[in-house]
Amino acid sequence: MHNALLPLITALKKKKALSGVSALLSWDQETYMPEGSIEQRAEQLALIDSISHAHHTSHDFKSAMAEVVDLKTGLPRIDGLTESEKTMVKAVWRDWQKTNALPTAFVEELSKATALGQHQWGIAREQNKFLDFAPHLQKMVELQRKKAVFYNMEGHAYDALIDDYEPGMKMADINPLFDALRDAIIDIRKRIETSKATFVDISESHYDITKQWDFGVDILNEMGFDFKRGRQDKSVHPFTTEFNRNDVRITTRFNPNDLLESFSSTIHEGGHALYEQGLDAYWDGTPLAEAMSLGIHESQSLLWENYVCYSWPFWDGHFNKLKQYFRYEFTGVSAEQFYRTINQVQPSCIRVEADEVTYSLHIMLRYEIEKALISGDLDVAELPTLWNQRMADYVGITPPNDTQGVLQDVHWSYGLFGYFPTYALGNLYGRMLFEQAESEIPDLNGSIRRGEMLALKTWLNDKVHKVGRGTTPSELITHITGKELSVTPFVNYLKEKYGAIYKVKL
Amino acid sequence: MHNALLPLITALKKKKALSGVSALLSWDQETYMPEGSIEQRAEQLALIDSISHAHHTSHDFKSAMAEVVDLKTGLPRIDGLTESEKTMVKAVWRDWQKTNALPTAFVEELSKATALGQHQWGIAREQNKFLDFAPHLQKMVELQRKKAVFYNMEGHAYDALIDDYEPGMKMADINPLFDALRDAIIDIRKRIETSKATFVDISESHYDITKQWDFGVDILNEMGFDFKRGRQDKSVHPFTTEFNRNDVRITTRFNPNDLLESFSSTIHEGGHALYEQGLDAYWDGTPLAEAMSLGIHESQSLLWENYVCYSWPFWDGHFNKLKQYFRYEFTGVSAEQFYRTINQVQPSCIRVEADEVTYSLHIMLRYEIEKALISGDLDVAELPTLWNQRMADYVGITPPNDTQGVLQDVHWSYGLFGYFPTYALGNLYGRMLFEQAESEIPDLNGSIRRGEMLALKTWLNDKVHKVGRGTTPSELITHITGKELSVTPFVNYLKEKYGAIYKVKL
Repeated sequence: MHNALLPLITALKKKKALSGVSALLSWDQETYMPEGSIEQRAEQLALIDSISHAHHTSHDFKSAMAEVVDLKTGLPRIDGLTESEKTMVKAVWRDWQKTNALPTAFVEELSKATALGQHQWGIAREQNKFLDFAPHLQKMVELQRKKAVFYNMEGHAYDALIDDYEPGMKMADINPLFDALRDAIIDIRKRIETSKATFVDISESHYDITKQWDFGVDILNEMGFDFKRGRQDKSVHPFTTEFNRNDVRITTRFNPNDLLESFSSTIHEGGHALYEQGLDAYWDGTPLAEAMSLGIHESQSLLWENYVCYSWPFWDGHFNKLKQYFRYEFTGVSAEQFYRTINQVQPSCIRVEADEVTYSLHIMLRYEIEKALISGDLDVAELPTLWNQRMADYVGITPPNDTQGVLQDVHWSYGLFGYFPTYALGNLYGRMLFEQAESEIPDLNGSIRRGEMLALKTWLNDKVHKVGRGTTPSELITHITGKELSVTPFVNYLKEKYGAIYKVKL
Repeated sequence: MHNALLPLITALKKKKALSGVSALLSWDQETYMPEGSIEQRAEQLALIDSISHAHHTSHDFKSAMAEVVDLKTGLPRIDGLTESEKTMVKAVWRDWQKTNALPTAFVEELSKATALGQHQWGIAREQNKFLDFAPHLQKMVELQRKKAVFYNMEGHAYDALIDDYEPGMKMADINPLFDALRDAIIDIRKRIETSKATFVDISESHYDITKQWDFGVDILNEMGFDFKRGRQDKSVHPFTTEFNRNDVRITTRFNPNDLLESFSSTIHEGGHALYEQGLDAYWDGTPLAEAMSLGIHESQSLLWENYVCYSWPFWDGHFNKLKQYFRYEFTGVSAEQFYRTINQVQPSCIRVEADEVTYSLHIMLRYEIEKALISGDLDVAELPTLWNQRMADYVGITPPNDTQGVLQDVHWSYGLFGYFPTYALGNLYGRMLFEQAESEIPDLNGSIRRGEMLALKTWLNDKVHKVGRGTTPSELITHITGKELSVTPFVNYLKEKYGAIYKVKL
């Protein structure tokens, strides 16, 4: 590392240490904290976050940065930096610029609106009263537009919002992808609906939770999750958090009647966790040791969940292992029957309960709506009608009420606009990465069958994880695969997989 | 609360929130943290502690205090404070004065010497090489003398050190108590050694750990431990920590062959935890909502452990409950046999393994040594010989080596001088408090027998816990019991209890 960078590295490591402390406070709140302490925990979190913000906007931080970078342009002020060091410094500068772009008064207004908005959203959802939430949503939309103005980036306001989660990705990139994806999936969904295929029912058994836990841990070990630098616990909502590269924690949840609830979340969060554990130690504390984007993060979880652990090769090799835990529960069920059953397409009103095929349609809907809200083409009052119409058109279901419709997600009340598209992008990235891995790793599917997945993990470490935030998501995909980001691999994969499962031409 | 105090209260709550964060970082390290993250955790802890120290020594904190108190004298600068508010402000001022009394350079020197000293102590203990540790101990003694000078308090340097753990307690108070205690216990020990009493052996069984856990939790519930404002986990060394009054956590450890290891530590830490949970919400963040001293803290754990849960009334009422968990393990064992066996006096070289009778002798030895080290009457080099001589005289055992002798405790390497006497004081306080409770709570021993211990908990809440740091330990004891602190109740208790168990005249 260039000597002149060391003060900046020190300042960055302090920022990272504080974010790790904040993450521990949140993790503990979701896993072990006694309920009586919720207020004090909120105070502790707010305090640490304010200390962290104060550090990032401090004179000391600015000075450390000004030593090496022109504060107006982000270009290096010193000679002799490597290309990676230049990239790192530029990314630090962009983060700093964004943090400093927002006036304190605005940050406070946003923070209050978020707290109130979330609270009101919770009540409105419980009582199925969209109109009670509407003014808070309207307020949030206005604040998001303001945020985009403060960011002072070129192009559409919504592009500036996306940039917080998926750097460099713009509507102009996403629109054609999502249009094609939506039409292709609606077509697949409708064809599947014509299938007469039948499935065995595995929902009647009781699956011992300790055994579910143990099977999940077996697979985490096969994936190469490092339990010396991470752990798994239980929580109401599964999540991944990291306090640093050496302490990455996932959570899962259990349903005694649904084996797949814990299995899916263990693998999904495990995929996220491998990303965090795989970051480059050399760049600790810097953007080059941070995950690139939410979409790339999601590509890692979806790759392991869908393309590895819900694949036929996986179950061809693992169903007998599962039966060692659940001998009686699967009497008379074959590996193929099990594989087909767990991959059934069952459209749902609820995004988080959606299957792999229709999941992206939920995202298309949200993407279209938030674009229109931010641009002003859509009035908040029109949301429920539009939502239900598009649910019917896309997913083929009309939600029975707003609670199960437009009010289902916390994101907008939380001020997260531009976040939803990253879920669908994750599928596209993930599929292209997986197919590239297939072409580079000899007999990848055989390895998956045998549970020897370290080659895949190492490939992802090298190609994706160690890059950190060293480039943009679309550049990364093109660099690794040699191809432009496209929906074709994902759509073809769905056609092939579900054509076989449903015995229809897709 | 007086309005003028509010800025100070805000500053104190920030300090408290930071200490809670620090405590969470430590708790997590001892319970769930993956081993790979130890370095990053040390950095996080150092960072939060430095932020906390900076806050306590900041201009803002000083200003908030100067509003209400004369910084030279600690006397109030404003009218209209209640007596409690005056006491609180005085205590805040004393803490602040102590923190600010130590120059930054000295704090850093102490911190480095502690880190190095602890490290070298660990090696020396492992290798049984006292001479390798001796220079570090010498250095620590010198630094402690310096600390006492910085504190600039009247009297002996060792008194100033004790004051950090047992405010207001001085050698002049302790010496006569400990002299009497030492002589009385040595006499009791020698008489017990003449006893021909026999005991049943319960160490051969295997005690299921889940059942041990459940029985411990049953008793915690009987004691009134609030699981909505606390929790229990496992760790290598049992401890109690609190992030705030509403989040008090204890840990325990298990030995499948020794039922009492988890039972003792659960109850002992539970007693500490009741203190923290019982602090006064009104004074949150202030010294009046903090435990008074280490000795009073220990009085609470020892009271519950020894005077309640190792008593005959307790086991008379609970042995059948225990047998519900361990039916086969206790076939043919009576409640009385069990009670006598778990109270056997078995002198040990190791303080933390000592029984209730000889435990205080280990403390007398350490107290005498550290007094002499600080005053310069004893040379570090003479320690092992003196240690072994006194162990033989007091406990009746000569340690086979320094690892099991003078090197067994971490305290001195950690700079904790004046800490040891609080353990023995805890026994004296605890016994006087328990006897006062017996005199005020109708049929206390019957309640203990029946497991109805909330009356005792509430009594302790009112008499001890809610006082916070509103007075000194000896004043508190006299206020509650109407008597001067004395060894007589504790000594008489030992004579009565162990005279019966050993069937000898004590």
